Amino acid sequence: MKGTYSIGVDIGGTNTDIGLVRDDGKIIDQANLHTDDYWDAELYVRDMAQKITGLLQKNKVTKIEGIGIGAPNGNYYTGSIDQAPNLNFKGQVKLAEMMKQYIDAKVVVSNDANAAAYGEMIYGGAKDLDHFITFTLGTGVGSGIVIDRKLILGSTSTAGELGHSIIIINGRECGCGRKGCLETYTSARGIRRTTRELIEMSPLYDGILKDIPAERLSAKMVGDAANAGDPIGRQTFENVGYLLGIAMANAVTFSAPQAIFLMGGPVHAGEVLMKPLRKSFEEHLLNIYKGTVDIRVSELADNEVAILGAAALCQM
Amino acid sequence: MKGTYSIGVDIGGTNTDIGLVRDDGKIIDQANLHTDDYWDAELYVRDMAQKITGLLQKNKVTKIEGIGIGAPNGNYYTGSIDQAPNLNFKGQVKLAEMMKQYIDAKVVVSNDANAAAYGEMIYGGAKDLDHFITFTLGTGVGSGIVIDRKLILGSTSTAGELGHSIIIINGRECGCGRKGCLETYTSARGIRRTTRELIEMSPLYDGILKDIPAERLSAKMVGDAANAGDPIGRQTFENVGYLLGIAMANAVTFSAPQAIFLMGGPVHAGEVLMKPLRKSFEEHLLNIYKGTVDIRVSELADNEVAILGAAALCQM
Repeated sequence: MKGTYSIGVDIGGTNTDIGLVRDDGKIIDQANLHTDDYWDAELYVRDMAQKITGLLQKNKVTKIEGIGIGAPNGNYYTGSIDQAPNLNFKGQVKLAEMMKQYIDAKVVVSNDANAAAYGEMIYGGAKDLDHFITFTLGTGVGSGIVIDRKLILGSTSTAGELGHSIIIINGRECGCGRKGCLETYTSARGIRRTTRELIEMSPLYDGILKDIPAERLSAKMVGDAANAGDPIGRQTFENVGYLLGIAMANAVTFSAPQAIFLMGGPVHAGEVLMKPLRKSFEEHLLNIYKGTVDIRVSELADNEVAILGAAALCQM
Repeated sequence: MKGTYSIGVDIGGTNTDIGLVRDDGKIIDQANLHTDDYWDAELYVRDMAQKITGLLQKNKVTKIEGIGIGAPNGNYYTGSIDQAPNLNFKGQVKLAEMMKQYIDAKVVVSNDANAAAYGEMIYGGAKDLDHFITFTLGTGVGSGIVIDRKLILGSTSTAGELGHSIIIINGRECGCGRKGCLETYTSARGIRRTTRELIEMSPLYDGILKDIPAERLSAKMVGDAANAGDPIGRQTFENVGYLLGIAMANAVTFSAPQAIFLMGGPVHAGEVLMKPLRKSFEEHLLNIYKGTVDIRVSELADNEVAILGAAALCQM
């Protein structure tokens, strides 16, 4: 620990969370903005800068490594958010440039899933790894890829969209307009969809998930049911583990990582997910990679990963 | 052109081709060894060194950038060939170390498909690109990935095995022991298999491919038939293009390249392959990547790519 600090900003459609992060990965203090209160990006960034300055003064921090910002469609190369579908600001918002009007610091922007991967390397379980991939199971499935300790951005800054790799040709319809994307099966939403499909196909099923209305059913409920021995809950997570294992084996053929990290709520289902996942992964892994890749659970807390990932970007 | 030279060595199970390559990508002179005549790796490398020295003397070249060696299971990190299934030498053959006993030069080893990708960057159509992927359609399907002008090797030096990404879950049996690998459908062997299956399913088919015995049928014959309007030939290449388009769209979600290059014999089938491939690629490409990725044919000649790829490794 060098006793240095970074600012991590996690921009979501509803909330913007700002954290003051110490170099050992401790979030010292936090502030918040309501993203959806703003329709003018200039005002939004001005208030964000004010909150950051406030955090620094309150905690008597006079020097930071930088400000890292994780946002949907955040672009590292341009320091901007481009056409983010969940934000009121349309077009390109040049965050880094605007922020520097207020605070003289390094400002780094990236998309949230890529930031999470970088967070795992700087503050989490990948501190000693050169090559790894992260999968975040949330509303969708995000991913981030690190090779030789570098975050893979590609030509567009949007590399690492493995949630939209096609796992079943002509499979389930995806929000992206295509079919069979990994996230239609393995996101929290995909998990609910599988459970509902299984219930419909099982007229004799009389378990705890049966009478929960579709709109109230959550991936957590399915996980809890699976852990209580419910057959539909178990079958759902077997399906998720099976497909995720194939997707991970496919990802290994790309970058031959040392480890793959799982993040996000559904991961807390534990062994009902991890056991079929590891089995499928081993079964579908090409021979030459056997024994070279660990499947691990992220060491970052769900409620901290977004801020830590953003703060980690300052080390890029 | 700086007028510098490299040696490129392409190690195959039957032949070892050695080329003296000028920095503009011209192969100035060549020599050859029969790989399968050798059972002792020491003798093999000694004779290889002798051939290289002979080439340099004959062409009055006194200085080289290095010796690049492309080989099945060639390992960049260790400079060795590891357990190559088609070679008489078993275990690990420490090529770079052994070669340096005879010639005082930089010696770089890599697998052949990765070398081909690097060759495209140094001598071919990717000279001005930072991010691209190559797919080589041969007996199998090889691939190489370049990100930020660096060849992706991963933790094991065996990154870039996209021919063994699973494109159809529980699909065709693959030589690797698993099912549904891309190469079971889109390699030269996969193409023949599809043609034979289509003929079996089409009792009324009476075209040019019908009476060719299975063991004589080649991907080239299928391509020629397709170009002559044969329905089974066309259907075969439509299938190859369709699946390859999906595999390429999936690869884009990984590294967001600027271009994807196709290499290998079946590519000469031309538009009967490229048209369905481009159509499928566009159809399966995630929205955010639309218009950012070109599908191109390699600019390296089929009979030169192995030597050029190997020689290019000297620039790593």
